[in-house]
Amino acid sequence: MLEVGIVGGTGYTGVELLRLLIGHPDVAIRVITSRGEAGTPVADLFPSLRGHLDLNFTDPDPAVLAACDLVFFATPHGVAQSQVPALLEAGVRVVDLSADFRIRDIATWEQWYGQDHGCPELVGEAVYGLPEVHREAIRTARLVACPGCYPTGVQLGFLPLLERGLVDTGDLIASCASGASGAGRQAKVDNLLTELSGSFKAYGVGGHRHLPEMEQGLRDIAGGDVSLTFVPHLLPIVRGIHCTLYGTLKDTGVDLQALYEERFADEPFVDVLPEGAMPQTRTVRGTNSCRISVFRPQARDKVVVLVAEDNLVKGASGQAVQAMNLMFGLPEARGLDYPALLP
Amino acid sequence: MLEVGIVGGTGYTGVELLRLLIGHPDVAIRVITSRGEAGTPVADLFPSLRGHLDLNFTDPDPAVLAACDLVFFATPHGVAQSQVPALLEAGVRVVDLSADFRIRDIATWEQWYGQDHGCPELVGEAVYGLPEVHREAIRTARLVACPGCYPTGVQLGFLPLLERGLVDTGDLIASCASGASGAGRQAKVDNLLTELSGSFKAYGVGGHRHLPEMEQGLRDIAGGDVSLTFVPHLLPIVRGIHCTLYGTLKDTGVDLQALYEERFADEPFVDVLPEGAMPQTRTVRGTNSCRISVFRPQARDKVVVLVAEDNLVKGASGQAVQAMNLMFGLPEARGLDYPALLP
Amino acid sequence: MLEVGIVGGTGYTGVELLRLLIGHPDVAIRVITSRGEAGTPVADLFPSLRGHLDLNFTDPDPAVLAACDLVFFATPHGVAQSQVPALLEAGVRVVDLSADFRIRDIATWEQWYGQDHGCPELVGEAVYGLPEVHREAIRTARLVACPGCYPTGVQLGFLPLLERGLVDTGDLIASCASGASGAGRQAKVDNLLTELSGSFKAYGVGGHRHLPEMEQGLRDIAGGDVSLTFVPHLLPIVRGIHCTLYGTLKDTGVDLQALYEERFADEPFVDVLPEGAMPQTRTVRGTNSCRISVFRPQARDKVVVLVAEDNLVKGASGQAVQAMNLMFGLPEARGLDYPALLP
Amino acid sequence: MLEVGIVGGTGYTGVELLRLLIGHPDVAIRVITSRGEAGTPVADLFPSLRGHLDLNFTDPDPAVLAACDLVFFATPHGVAQSQVPALLEAGVRVVDLSADFRIRDIATWEQWYGQDHGCPELVGEAVYGLPEVHREAIRTARLVACPGCYPTGVQLGFLPLLERGLVDTGDLIASCASGASGAGRQAKVDNLLTELSGSFKAYGVGGHRHLPEMEQGLRDIAGGDVSLTFVPHLLPIVRGIHCTLYGTLKDTGVDLQALYEERFADEPFVDVLPEGAMPQTRTVRGTNSCRISVFRPQARDKVVVLVAEDNLVKGASGQAVQAMNLMFGLPEARGLDYPALLP
Repeated sequence: MLEVGIVGGTGYTGVELLRLLIGHPDVAIRVITSRGEAGTPVADLFPSLRGHLDLNFTDPDPAVLAACDLVFFATPHGVAQSQVPALLEAGVRVVDLSADFRIRDIATWEQWYGQDHGCPELVGEAVYGLPEVHREAIRTARLVACPGCYPTGVQLGFLPLLERGLVDTGDLIASCASGASGAGRQAKVDNLLTELSGSFKAYGVGGHRHLPEMEQGLRDIAGGDVSLTFVPHLLPIVRGIHCTLYGTLKDTGVDLQALYEERFADEPFVDVLPEGAMPQTRTVRGTNSCRISVFRPQARDKVVVLVAEDNLVKGASGQAVQAMNLMFGLPEARGLDYPALLP
Repeated sequence: MLEVGIVGGTGYTGVELLRLLIGHPDVAIRVITSRGEAGTPVADLFPSLRGHLDLNFTDPDPAVLAACDLVFFATPHGVAQSQVPALLEAGVRVVDLSADFRIRDIATWEQWYGQDHGCPELVGEAVYGLPEVHREAIRTARLVACPGCYPTGVQLGFLPLLERGLVDTGDLIASCASGASGAGRQAKVDNLLTELSGSFKAYGVGGHRHLPEMEQGLRDIAGGDVSLTFVPHLLPIVRGIHCTLYGTLKDTGVDLQALYEERFADEPFVDVLPEGAMPQTRTVRGTNSCRISVFRPQARDKVVVLVAEDNLVKGASGQAVQAMNLMFGLPEARGLDYPALLP
Repeated sequence: MLEVGIVGGTGYTGVELLRLLIGHPDVAIRVITSRGEAGTPVADLFPSLRGHLDLNFTDPDPAVLAACDLVFFATPHGVAQSQVPALLEAGVRVVDLSADFRIRDIATWEQWYGQDHGCPELVGEAVYGLPEVHREAIRTARLVACPGCYPTGVQLGFLPLLERGLVDTGDLIASCASGASGAGRQAKVDNLLTELSGSFKAYGVGGHRHLPEMEQGLRDIAGGDVSLTFVPHLLPIVRGIHCTLYGTLKDTGVDLQALYEERFADEPFVDVLPEGAMPQTRTVRGTNSCRISVFRPQARDKVVVLVAEDNLVKGASGQAVQAMNLMFGLPEARGLDYPALLP
Repeated sequence: MLEVGIVGGTGYTGVELLRLLIGHPDVAIRVITSRGEAGTPVADLFPSLRGHLDLNFTDPDPAVLAACDLVFFATPHGVAQSQVPALLEAGVRVVDLSADFRIRDIATWEQWYGQDHGCPELVGEAVYGLPEVHREAIRTARLVACPGCYPTGVQLGFLPLLERGLVDTGDLIASCASGASGAGRQAKVDNLLTELSGSFKAYGVGGHRHLPEMEQGLRDIAGGDVSLTFVPHLLPIVRGIHCTLYGTLKDTGVDLQALYEERFADEPFVDVLPEGAMPQTRTVRGTNSCRISVFRPQARDKVVVLVAEDNLVKGASGQAVQAMNLMFGLPEARGLDYPALLP
């Protein structure tokens, strides 16, 4: 039985991580910390867990965390940086769901996140937790930096094209949309039902923190410079990310459907849909699956890739559990292999 | 391994039954029939099941069904009546999710359902599949008639009061609301997103087919006549039923909270909330749990009971699986014991 | 041209009042105050008004308000109490959308609102602004206390029955549901889209501030004591209130449809639907209309009344404009007579 | 008083046209036809109009229509083609909301709409009803072909860039999303609330009928060939279209904000937002306004234009009324100049 701890579990990635770990047959949740909610039964904050988890939030205690095999950080950025070194020192492995260790260039991180990086010395060691790209490194990693929700979809969608050098890397576009849970469990007027329901809008067009993460990942895949235009939109739904990706083909003779099917044939959580089918976010809601379609409209030189995932699962907590499974030699899909609730 | 078949699986109770059975460790789904969709892969109709179920809809074949241990009917009313006798004859046990065997009085059934009853001789044998009331009979039943979605909530909510004779049975009120999946997967203008979204209305105030079923069940519990006023409403959500029940207390001295907690203490799927808490449909979405609160507002003589359940799970397919577990000596919660997706 | 001012206009009743007054041919909005947003263009806070209102929020200035013909208070409770006396003194008439002057019994007000009443001497003079009951008094009132959103629906629904003494006044039930705009434009986790969307729940079962207001109004209509059980619920929609009212008929021989049609025949904003029809909140969304149906299910002794209104219009700002029209001798429906947006 | 008729008014553009015309001070609705609903009071089909329109649907009667000043066609494609010639002959002017006269190339029309064109001789005369491009021609037109909902947003968004030759016309991308009312009032399983709610997907990626219409319009504006990649998506909301447009700038030195503000300075229904602001569909819901923002993310060579409109108003019925105003010398904004309902 794997003993795990969670630091910061009062947000939506926290409750989703709890849900997944409760259903995982090889995991025991030993501790979940929250300074603000210390003493509160977890099921009081998250009534969905009532009857399924008999645990209170506690103040973080280094000794208790150090006794875990693995600690997840589901904290705002800046927190993991200060606590990870001691845990690694104590032999605990770490999966960080925050942005702290995702970006290799420290100056870029500090620019986008508006603070000094508290632990630059571990950034180089951290493995970027996208199993479809870094599976082997994740298996042996001490510290895994889980990808952001948008970066997961955008990288998986462009992956086969960039690996094979089939598109113009200077002209990539990602028109994406996310459910409101991506904005977290924070009391803000902008995220009230009355403000979002029945409406749709773009946001962060001028600049979004996921852009440098995506460009870094796409560069790694392409083996060279890339330029991505990224426009996120806010959907009046709770969960789900949809990415519509546009690229200019250098060669229109490639069988795109075959390319995608072959690239992801062995991937447990990437599902390339049959030709002509289009993914819907609801068919992956609550699951770790990422569904992808590829099109060449009007047989012109533009390729359109559609990607659907659940921002809280494959885009966050599910991907974290997938990484955990890899790190501890468990079957990769353990605890993650069930169909979506539909309708 | 229990071998099960499903007759009629193209509706929402069908896909929900499939989801639950896919996750059930002791069940193998042998066959799912649909005249209209024969030959279609199930996952084409329900993309949520893609990768989880490799089965096509088939035309009903009596021999194939007769080889099952259990057959579920997820059909419109009138269908099970004609096929159940042969299956029982063949030694197959049956769980019927339709209304065919719920009402003992044949004339009442025929009046509300507008057709002759095709199998009155089995109505007496059929066990009403509400485990909280008929658990022992379900264990040995050949034929279980699953309760309707509203009747489940209304009966569970009034149960402790009626068993103990604490309310005026001539003055029961059930003000209920259901998500749109209760109306089924049918192409009707009234059920379009454009017609329902952002709106709320009552329906069926003049008369609803669940009324005679509820009054029959409440009479059984009360051991005498009852009069129920039932007003259903339509919520612009997919899943969930909420019942707000009103009764007039004959004795205001009873500790209602203790009464409810004690009555349901051993029930795996009825969760009496702490005093003052109120159930939300989302906290039971996708689960077989029924959550109940009880109040006596302003310390007057009215009791208010709040009940939340998922109409497709505890109100239909989950309750059917619970019955199956009982019928075959499996742990009652097998395959049904997981938390809701939240948010 | 009527010159009006608005005190506190940063909430949802404020923006709705602005929308209605912008479309009113006889009104000029002179000033809108907000301490928190002083200096901000109104259209920056409410982009729907961009191009339609060229006004900034200002700090409240008694002289400016005193120069108006009418001042609306769209403030939290407790504010109007302190400012109304000076305005009346200056000859300004006041329509208060808050709860400050709704309840005649000061002790009751103080108990439910948890503070001392700041202006008890004007409570007796304030006219309760429900035109269907107090039309003549509103015409000449200096101070109108607009009814709450739930009280409007509940009183209009029970009105014909109570006026004629047709129901047991000791056994009235109001099972109501409101859209989330009823909770106001406040940054609270509970009101996030992620917390409310796709869900339904009751709230305030133990006690809600609208209960004493409703019982006071119903007593006035009935001419004697009443006992009301009131259970509000929260709908995952933006606008709309639906009331399902239950009463016990003392005489089942009355023609209820005729009773309702006759009572409201001359009311511009109460629409009794044809027999058998049921109101939907969306058909009155954005309008001042209140739609009502009456039923006697199963021809028993229970009467069921269904009421739909828009909580921000007939339940707040529209009713305030209707009162203004009456107070200044304008046609009662002026500025309020347009159909709902549908779908 | 302008006397107007409507052919085919049982869909969502029909009811929206009725709502707008009811509120228009210079219009009298003389007749509304529907073969399927002949005899039905309009307010029975559309309860929002109850009390506002006392008219029944009738079978189409050429004499009655010929007595109108203007006839609107709110019919499926193929219908207007057969009836327009006789009306024009009779001196009636026509605004066609369907696709019948939008595309000048008959072969293209026939290919995308899958039928022979019934009236090719009038296609050349028909004026494409986008006032921002064809205002003067609309004033004198006998026959106006109203633009589709997506084409309105896409053309208005690209207009300033293409007129000035600032972007690569071979590389235009329109990533658009529409509310479900765009799919019409048709009984289809795919459009049920249970199928769409809480989900998002692309559709028609392989080819959508609005593509040739858009490319024709963009060619006209650009004065040369264009290539557009168009991906529509389906939003789980009732109303609203959002277009996110991508182009490659030939010159990055242009002041895009000034360009857009100047181009649309005199347009009553195009509102260029302040720099950095982003349009939301809800702020134009129910209105004829089209809101636009323009960005150059990361100061690279890509321009991103955001457009929000109401698909049933500026994308259909409002634009038709705007055309009518122009055709009959009325103020262009008459009957269309009111703020959106918000929240």
